[in-house]
Amino acid sequence: MATNPIVPLVEYENAPEPVRAVYDDIMRTRGTDWINNFWKVLAHDPALLKRTWEDIKQVMAPGALDPLTKEMIYIAVSATNGCEYCTYSHTASARTKGMSNEQLMELMAVVGMANETNRLANGLRPPVDEQFTPR
Amino acid sequence: MATNPIVPLVEYENAPEPVRAVYDDIMRTRGTDWINNFWKVLAHDPALLKRTWEDIKQVMAPGALDPLTKEMIYIAVSATNGCEYCTYSHTASARTKGMSNEQLMELMAVVGMANETNRLANGLRPPVDEQFTPR
Amino acid sequence: MATNPIVPLVEYENAPEPVRAVYDDIMRTRGTDWINNFWKVLAHDPALLKRTWEDIKQVMAPGALDPLTKEMIYIAVSATNGCEYCTYSHTASARTKGMSNEQLMELMAVVGMANETNRLANGLRPPVDEQFTPR
Amino acid sequence: MATNPIVPLVEYENAPEPVRAVYDDIMRTRGTDWINNFWKVLAHDPALLKRTWEDIKQVMAPGALDPLTKEMIYIAVSATNGCEYCTYSHTASARTKGMSNEQLMELMAVVGMANETNRLANGLRPPVDEQFTPR
Amino acid sequence: MATNPIVPLVEYENAPEPVRAVYDDIMRTRGTDWINNFWKVLAHDPALLKRTWEDIKQVMAPGALDPLTKEMIYIAVSATNGCEYCTYSHTASARTKGMSNEQLMELMAVVGMANETNRLANGLRPPVDEQFTPR
Amino acid sequence: MATNPIVPLVEYENAPEPVRAVYDDIMRTRGTDWINNFWKVLAHDPALLKRTWEDIKQVMAPGALDPLTKEMIYIAVSATNGCEYCTYSHTASARTKGMSNEQLMELMAVVGMANETNRLANGLRPPVDEQFTPR
Repeated sequence: MATNPIVPLVEYENAPEPVRAVYDDIMRTRGTDWINNFWKVLAHDPALLKRTWEDIKQVMAPGALDPLTKEMIYIAVSATNGCEYCTYSHTASARTKGMSNEQLMELMAVVGMANETNRLANGLRPPVDEQFTPR
Repeated sequence: MATNPIVPLVEYENAPEPVRAVYDDIMRTRGTDWINNFWKVLAHDPALLKRTWEDIKQVMAPGALDPLTKEMIYIAVSATNGCEYCTYSHTASARTKGMSNEQLMELMAVVGMANETNRLANGLRPPVDEQFTPR
Repeated sequence: MATNPIVPLVEYENAPEPVRAVYDDIMRTRGTDWINNFWKVLAHDPALLKRTWEDIKQVMAPGALDPLTKEMIYIAVSATNGCEYCTYSHTASARTKGMSNEQLMELMAVVGMANETNRLANGLRPPVDEQFTPR
Repeated sequence: MATNPIVPLVEYENAPEPVRAVYDDIMRTRGTDWINNFWKVLAHDPALLKRTWEDIKQVMAPGALDPLTKEMIYIAVSATNGCEYCTYSHTASARTKGMSNEQLMELMAVVGMANETNRLANGLRPPVDEQFTPR
Repeated sequence: MATNPIVPLVEYENAPEPVRAVYDDIMRTRGTDWINNFWKVLAHDPALLKRTWEDIKQVMAPGALDPLTKEMIYIAVSATNGCEYCTYSHTASARTKGMSNEQLMELMAVVGMANETNRLANGLRPPVDEQFTPR
Repeated sequence: MATNPIVPLVEYENAPEPVRAVYDDIMRTRGTDWINNFWKVLAHDPALLKRTWEDIKQVMAPGALDPLTKEMIYIAVSATNGCEYCTYSHTASARTKGMSNEQLMELMAVVGMANETNRLANGLRPPVDEQFTPR
């Protein structure tokens, strides 16, 4: 039960042309020959698929932050939100970008602490210090 | 209204000895001469204050990840949870560790995307791909 | 493992009279001949079962908003919170009320965007514009 | 700015009869002579006001759990969700039911730990142990 | 304190050309002569500004769902996440699209119920019914 | 699929000495002869394992709140966050401390209500009453 996705997976063979174009770009950009299931459910709305992929490609590209740092931030958010799919997929992706076990465990330690102190602050409501207020 | 903390701030002058010892260690470790309000509310429970500070000191120290990366992960979690105090305090802290405007904005872009795709996955429930499953 | 509910399902045959009365009303109202598992766990507290069902019946009834719009709002919240059971059950319910694939995918697109911009606002903290402040 | 509620407060003087009836019951039940702002915004929908108040009255009444324990659970949820209004109102309410500073601080310590370990589990995904699976 | 945004607002007069182009498109599309603060903080990253605006414009356009329904879904997510800025801005936006007080209050009632039952399901873990599993 | 943890379980036989020392203390403190999977994933970072266990031991010990109340607060947070592992493990733990079915169901009722009214407050934004503001 409950292991089926909410909408069926759109496989390459059955995909309309605009979906295939995105699938091709995903595989070309990543240097892989398969498409992960996240894109196969988005494919029910080709505009959503295309927009989300292009946004991801732009956002995760090297910039002021390197791609591995970006993947770790992605994992931090996914663990905070409890998204199972995203935790598995972005951890796998960070591994391919060289994340070590030590880095993963330190990442988790920071995520845990931040979630803890966020609630201590939310529950006790200290006022923001003047020194922290941006000018 | 509503700007008072849930418990009064414990100022250094009025703090019992175990609280002062933590305050002193915070200032020594950070090279500052003031204590931010987060610690002043925790101080109502000296054991909680001491444990939280020592955990933070250990977790945020340089290791497999550098301190600036750790601060950015902290910001990612705090923005995801909507913690106002933590967003201001950890952004200020990341600034002192050299975070540029470009880094902050890219961090936010990743946080935004991750929160978006987390919900696309939560709403459409693609199964985790075999390729992403750790062995 | 972990597939058992926290409390056993209370089946109609074994249910005490006040639980049966609610089960009967659920089936009558929905025109079905079965009870979904959500109610079978709530049934351990007949007062909670009755209150939750009567609240749902009142809240989801046609009013200023039509029932399909209400189901889609329910899905939006459930996807945001990552509730697996609720995502499956309310999507199924929205389907029976006529939700098309196009509507589901647009709903998901809005949910994704809202979760993204919520965090951009939480992380960058723009002040609420005077023009948006209710009078 | 932004300090106005989304809908104006419905004051007793201007409230329609069904709203006054609920306001009267709130004051009678609590032994107070004022209505807090939460109810004054709900009053725009008298059915929602009445249902929410009656649910709260039933749920928060003494039962298998005492009223103070219930208030502390309410605070735990409110701090986890970051609800400012609810944190202030339920902390005030718990104070009138005898919550000591020590209890509040221990409550916060548990809330912090739970939020931390929830994310360690969400990020590292240990399988649920057979011993924890209900029979 | 704490009322300043994390980054200064980028006003039209001081904005670089690519930011002005987006601001112009926002005002043209909405038929207004001002820019709200959300865009003024995003403007620190012109690519993020442009991408977010174009995504929003595409996602919120009339389609299988009408614009008012989309705004209400946006409010549902924002209230669930506790995003103050987004709650004020999207409620204001929904008002201009004709949302009545009755619709707002029913929306809130559904959002409240969904958040309640999401946690009853998360806490008691009923298995997803076979009847709700998509084929 | 997806049932494997993100990092392999560290079993006692293969654990390095510092991990064994923590495992031994867990079993001694709890009077059990097995280690649950949560600790077996944390064990990849012995410092994180030790710190988290010692924090938990300190925080969950009897104090101003009794251990069962603390477990119920833990469940409240875990259900609010939707953490499956934590919901199963802390419910099991509360059972061993004497939690009755009636207590569990009342706990869930409070958790549900709090999550509901948190969103009503977040969506309608009543100002915090002067009477609730701590002095």
